[in-house]
Amino acid sequence: MHRPDGGSVSGNVLATYEIATALPLEKAAAVIAGEQSSGTFVAVARESAELKARHAAVVRSVDELPLSGRPPLPGAVGDWADARRARIVVEFPVHNFGPSVPNLLAAVAGNLFELRELGELRLVDLEVPDVFGTTYAGPAFGVEGTKALAGKAGATGPLIGTIVKPSVGLGPEELAELVEELAMAGIDFIKDDELQGNPPGFPLADRVHVVMDVLKRAADRTGRMPMYAFNITDDISHLASNHDLVRAAGGTCVMVVINAVGFAGVQYLRERAELPIHGHRAMFGAFARSPQLGIAFRVFQKLARLVGVDHLHTNGIANKFYETDDEVGASITDVRTPLLGGYHVVPVLSSGQTPAIADRTYARVGDPSDLLVLAGGGIHAHPGGSGAGVTAMREAWDAAVTGEALTARAERSPELAASLAQFGDRP
Amino acid sequence: MHRPDGGSVSGNVLATYEIATALPLEKAAAVIAGEQSSGTFVAVARESAELKARHAAVVRSVDELPLSGRPPLPGAVGDWADARRARIVVEFPVHNFGPSVPNLLAAVAGNLFELRELGELRLVDLEVPDVFGTTYAGPAFGVEGTKALAGKAGATGPLIGTIVKPSVGLGPEELAELVEELAMAGIDFIKDDELQGNPPGFPLADRVHVVMDVLKRAADRTGRMPMYAFNITDDISHLASNHDLVRAAGGTCVMVVINAVGFAGVQYLRERAELPIHGHRAMFGAFARSPQLGIAFRVFQKLARLVGVDHLHTNGIANKFYETDDEVGASITDVRTPLLGGYHVVPVLSSGQTPAIADRTYARVGDPSDLLVLAGGGIHAHPGGSGAGVTAMREAWDAAVTGEALTARAERSPELAASLAQFGDRP
Repeated sequence: MHRPDGGSVSGNVLATYEIATALPLEKAAAVIAGEQSSGTFVAVARESAELKARHAAVVRSVDELPLSGRPPLPGAVGDWADARRARIVVEFPVHNFGPSVPNLLAAVAGNLFELRELGELRLVDLEVPDVFGTTYAGPAFGVEGTKALAGKAGATGPLIGTIVKPSVGLGPEELAELVEELAMAGIDFIKDDELQGNPPGFPLADRVHVVMDVLKRAADRTGRMPMYAFNITDDISHLASNHDLVRAAGGTCVMVVINAVGFAGVQYLRERAELPIHGHRAMFGAFARSPQLGIAFRVFQKLARLVGVDHLHTNGIANKFYETDDEVGASITDVRTPLLGGYHVVPVLSSGQTPAIADRTYARVGDPSDLLVLAGGGIHAHPGGSGAGVTAMREAWDAAVTGEALTARAERSPELAASLAQFGDRP
Repeated sequence: MHRPDGGSVSGNVLATYEIATALPLEKAAAVIAGEQSSGTFVAVARESAELKARHAAVVRSVDELPLSGRPPLPGAVGDWADARRARIVVEFPVHNFGPSVPNLLAAVAGNLFELRELGELRLVDLEVPDVFGTTYAGPAFGVEGTKALAGKAGATGPLIGTIVKPSVGLGPEELAELVEELAMAGIDFIKDDELQGNPPGFPLADRVHVVMDVLKRAADRTGRMPMYAFNITDDISHLASNHDLVRAAGGTCVMVVINAVGFAGVQYLRERAELPIHGHRAMFGAFARSPQLGIAFRVFQKLARLVGVDHLHTNGIANKFYETDDEVGASITDVRTPLLGGYHVVPVLSSGQTPAIADRTYARVGDPSDLLVLAGGGIHAHPGGSGAGVTAMREAWDAAVTGEALTARAERSPELAASLAQFGDRP
């Protein structure tokens, strides 16, 4: 990481919030700008006009929105019958905190969620100046590097992947059997579940040994080794050594739960990693599901890309979680949108994915050549076993991309036919 | 950090949630337990009865609560007219993830906030088994170590502290002047604002030099050096070096924004720190303010103490934020409650604190000998200057603890009289 000297740090951060308040909108916006830069709740000595001119955050726009119809968050002051809602943009001088993601967070997402002047407050977008791009290297592998390592350079379809299921509890023999079946069925990508970290009964080091042994033997037969994302989530002091044991065993990917190690933890790993980093978004809902509070995916994904994930979970179309297809589609678009001109990472579609929704997903997201689609139960619950599930996923996506109806393809693919019979009636 | 071998990892984690759902309560609780341990949305191969018996999370209790009266979070399934709300306790076998806070988080607070089966989901308590205590060293200094380093061993009143204000933008001369004034007025503790990290125009290294020079010169005159918490929040790779430059300059405390570096970042620092760690809770509101979603302070403070903060912000009585005095009082009680028999840290009362509420705070929190009370504007906005503000705070707390009315004390303390005139009518 390169930290520029003081003289070259210029530019501003633009933070966009959706707020609701019983105060005049402009006044509430000014409280946010003041609390998060030079001000406090009263004027203090040495708070000169010159200091304010150089350091104060400035409200750049206030655009009124319809009310959410929800009661205000606790503690909001004023009569909520007077409430108004708006999208506001606040500009922060980057020299207040420098090109540091943790200190950026303290400024744009620090105490302000606690302000009683607001009854709703959501950070929905964030634009950072170029100096962040010179500081944070971003993904080392991204889309092309990942496809190359998975032996799929130039492939036009999505990478087809799965999550080891059951999430926790498989012993060495069972895991080896499962991974071999998946590898022999030609899967592109396998990942540990986010619940599978470094359990004492079957530690990561043993898992790496078991899995890589199977994958290498399978590759000897198939000529191609799937990428396996080992979940190395742990205390920071273990991240580098966990990565190193995967690397030493010939593994090609590591996974972390971004929110469990923090953006700062991901960046720490990125500085030391020689493998792609698979970024899981578990815990995202804790600060994102309320439409009145927290931090939106658009912001989360920009920060995750800056600190260096190569793959980022976006949820999936027809998922088992709370987000609508429109929301998931927007998240995939966000991840595909260049950040500071680059930072291209692999959107990872996951949650409730099955062969039966390949056509629906393709219609929504278009060219899938940059995608990784993960089906857990959608593969492992196949009546013919996990290997048959892989075949069904591959057939379904091939049909979708070539414009063939899934039901038509199923007539010559018994694996897909079985999968459609199993999952075809899910909403 | 000591990681026990597999054989000695036993016990269970108890996670308490408040949920609301339109499904039968027991069914919704079972979905949480399944999603966060061995299950997924369909039954899969190798999910044996034996595996489930060893690894499944188990719902231990379901106690119905009154409805919140709020519309459900987006995406909740079912007819909300059928909704019921409950406090549930789920037991997780610790051998699923081992004594690792990041992997614990993935289990008890991972994807579950996104489940459509729930219209409200809040993690409100967490009990961890003793193996976490042997893994995480917790606070190295705590209450007694902090008081000793601040030259206040055995003091019966609270430590009186302040935050540098304006939050950002003071130059070296102004900062030196302010710190000298505070030190000569006998303050116990000074901290950087959470917005003051490592700005390029006045980097941390320069700030440490300026502040420590002033503090040492003041100590030569007063015989006592206040503790100064330098905000060293930054990417992980800078935490140890930032700490080391504070230590090398004779500083006695470092501060981090817990949510900006993550619990994992705090733990990383704790392993390398020789100074007390002041834990700021900025961004807490993002996942805590909604009564329907997220993670409560009771859980947050336990994790912060495990990973090793010595001081933890609890908000303050009569604060400028959204929490009620009852909530803040409960947070202070939580921090004071032994965790695994220890982990005693300093509750830090901050936000809108002034001399005028010392009596009210004392009545609420009792014996203040373990507390650090921080007044920013409440000290710096004093008409007689920051030094007079310190005197007013000290007089107010001394009066409160000795049972004297603030107005009576003000008759012989002009500094307190001026402060009461300024702040006495705040609610």
